[in-house]
Amino acid sequence: MSNIEPLDNLIAKFTKLPGVGLKTAQRYAYSIINMPKEDVEDFSNALINAKEKIHYCKTCGNYTDLDECEICQSRDKSIICVVKDPKDITAFEKCKTYKGVYHVLHGTLSPLAGIGPNDIKIKELLARLDGVKEVIMATNPDAEGDATAMYIARLIKPLGITVTRLASGVSMGSDIEYADEITLSRAIQDRKNI
Amino acid sequence: MSNIEPLDNLIAKFTKLPGVGLKTAQRYAYSIINMPKEDVEDFSNALINAKEKIHYCKTCGNYTDLDECEICQSRDKSIICVVKDPKDITAFEKCKTYKGVYHVLHGTLSPLAGIGPNDIKIKELLARLDGVKEVIMATNPDAEGDATAMYIARLIKPLGITVTRLASGVSMGSDIEYADEITLSRAIQDRKNI
Repeated sequence: MSNIEPLDNLIAKFTKLPGVGLKTAQRYAYSIINMPKEDVEDFSNALINAKEKIHYCKTCGNYTDLDECEICQSRDKSIICVVKDPKDITAFEKCKTYKGVYHVLHGTLSPLAGIGPNDIKIKELLARLDGVKEVIMATNPDAEGDATAMYIARLIKPLGITVTRLASGVSMGSDIEYADEITLSRAIQDRKNI
Repeated sequence: MSNIEPLDNLIAKFTKLPGVGLKTAQRYAYSIINMPKEDVEDFSNALINAKEKIHYCKTCGNYTDLDECEICQSRDKSIICVVKDPKDITAFEKCKTYKGVYHVLHGTLSPLAGIGPNDIKIKELLARLDGVKEVIMATNPDAEGDATAMYIARLIKPLGITVTRLASGVSMGSDIEYADEITLSRAIQDRKNI
């Protein structure tokens, strides 16, 4: 690439980030070289720090730097929102309407990819249902997410716990003209009285 | 953001990279957390390493981890290609046709931005013209790049050194239909016999 070993090495590291190709990695690497030394040291420490301190919450499986995450410690434990990834929690937290706790499955059922019920955190979910009134299945609205939601619902409903699924339909502020057929069919199917 | 301090800190660092917004930074940070520990350590070290070891070549101003860069040490010193940034050298080196050395100006003249002849490495260029037969002005083909090329040409030509400018015109493989007017005017103006 540039034949300057420390630079090429840094470029190679940047290409390991998702969606970063050679050109972008070069751009990032050059910007690092042009940063003040302290900023680069901070960056370097932030990497190590994040990797060392962040792990899964022992209760819900979200990322945390504590033993049990802040959400598990402080919120209404009678409602659990079940998501695929910790990133999904960030999305929910942004809208600030949900006051319950979460459970991260770390995947969804996918027979084709060989991911069965024992490969995701279903057992852990079943183990924390004491005193729970409602489980909201918030896996992605796609084939695997739906299948996972149905599978878990079938396990939990017999325990007398309400199991709900996120509403699916056209996105707020979107153009119906551009909505895909599956979303639109679902929106018609789940239409409600006004 | 996520309320997990080490994660938010890492996300903040990533947003300092050029063109990286909050969403992309989050994506990068999550991928770091999911990397093996050794990879993150390597990444962290690569940052420090690049920043510590890479500096400007004492002769041409290119990035190097040596005292004088490999290009200056090994190539034909009678031709100097003058560029704005070290990145431009990478672009030239990729095409493998140029066998001379480089000189990095680290900027171009820009009266509006207050960048005058003393703010870029013109003195350093004049100081290394002994035995030089040709200086190729390879600053960008825009107003500032052209002005810089003209300014430097006027200083060097009286010394009996050939000063040339990169050819400008339509890009190879491009569609004339989509070429901008200025490029096309230049291509007509500089047309050559075939």
